[in-house]
Amino acid sequence: MKLLPKSVEKAIEEFSKLPGIGPKSASRLVFHLIRQHQSTSQQLGEALTSLHGSLIFCANCCNIADSDPCVVCDDQGRDNHIICVVEQPLDAVALERTEYNGRYHILGGSISPIDGIGPDNLNIKPLFTRLKNSPAITEVIIATNPTMEGEATALYLSQQFDEQNIKVKVSRIAHGLPVGGDLEYADAVTLTRAIEGRQSLV
Amino acid sequence: MKLLPKSVEKAIEEFSKLPGIGPKSASRLVFHLIRQHQSTSQQLGEALTSLHGSLIFCANCCNIADSDPCVVCDDQGRDNHIICVVEQPLDAVALERTEYNGRYHILGGSISPIDGIGPDNLNIKPLFTRLKNSPAITEVIIATNPTMEGEATALYLSQQFDEQNIKVKVSRIAHGLPVGGDLEYADAVTLTRAIEGRQSLV
Repeated sequence: MKLLPKSVEKAIEEFSKLPGIGPKSASRLVFHLIRQHQSTSQQLGEALTSLHGSLIFCANCCNIADSDPCVVCDDQGRDNHIICVVEQPLDAVALERTEYNGRYHILGGSISPIDGIGPDNLNIKPLFTRLKNSPAITEVIIATNPTMEGEATALYLSQQFDEQNIKVKVSRIAHGLPVGGDLEYADAVTLTRAIEGRQSLV
Repeated sequence: MKLLPKSVEKAIEEFSKLPGIGPKSASRLVFHLIRQHQSTSQQLGEALTSLHGSLIFCANCCNIADSDPCVVCDDQGRDNHIICVVEQPLDAVALERTEYNGRYHILGGSISPIDGIGPDNLNIKPLFTRLKNSPAITEVIIATNPTMEGEATALYLSQQFDEQNIKVKVSRIAHGLPVGGDLEYADAVTLTRAIEGRQSLV
């Protein structure tokens, strides 16, 4: 017998579709919302209903945006000489917390044959078109994730720079021990990268 | 600089208000929804927007419901002689997975002086009004949680049965080792209860 009201069942069912949220967590979230003022669930509801509506992609950097060009591409205060290539919009958000002040290019993922994602499914062509049309760009930092797919994408991109004969400085973000990390618990691959990438102190 | 579109920022902010969901989990959920078809986020959005709208409380058992009386109180196929008193609607949902076929009464919480919740803040008066008006009821099972607050509530209720001179059989759900549990890892209080509540086999 369905003890719960239909609206509650429906909300639990919809929450359960989200990754990492099972039926029990979904119930807890919905009952938390029921105990709160009506405005809490309505604000979340309205934010989700209008989530896709206004989203467009910036034709320049391929990031999701309110406007085309996006706020970063439209910002005159940024360094025009450098582009950082990342997989996802959230990667650019993470880099914004650093002192990096250049431009971005969002690939929209990484090369992953097992998921059927090849170079043509990513925003790689727009990247090279952008590089050819913008002689101001002198450096490209490839900041894909240090995963198998991210490394494959970085390798593919570096080959494309050669093949398409684009003369810019191409670099890969450093791999090594995270700050606050512990040598004792680091895996062998990370340690190997940390030694390979050692920097001279004097 | 705000890199993300306003609608995305807003959805992340609203998700972060939920218990157990921090800004990082919220971002992951929102980007998951962005990658899905628009209908996924809209269905969740609409379910949340209309969550409170249709909710009412059953005047009989105090459960949240679509209608008054609720589906359980309205069901003629249930045992009218027995009421199970629980703290929250989800507790009744859990009991529905057993073979219990009686009625419910939802207290709406437990006595917790530290949170300012006394007997008057719970649906205790409606319970005794219901008992006085329904001579058919012969047994009440108190199924509040085996926590400090749940035990205090059970104790208070059992005293009230005496004080208000209501002659029904009052019982408390059994405490002991959960099925599949391990004696070795059980805490002392649970073990003490398990021995106190031992049942004869022959």
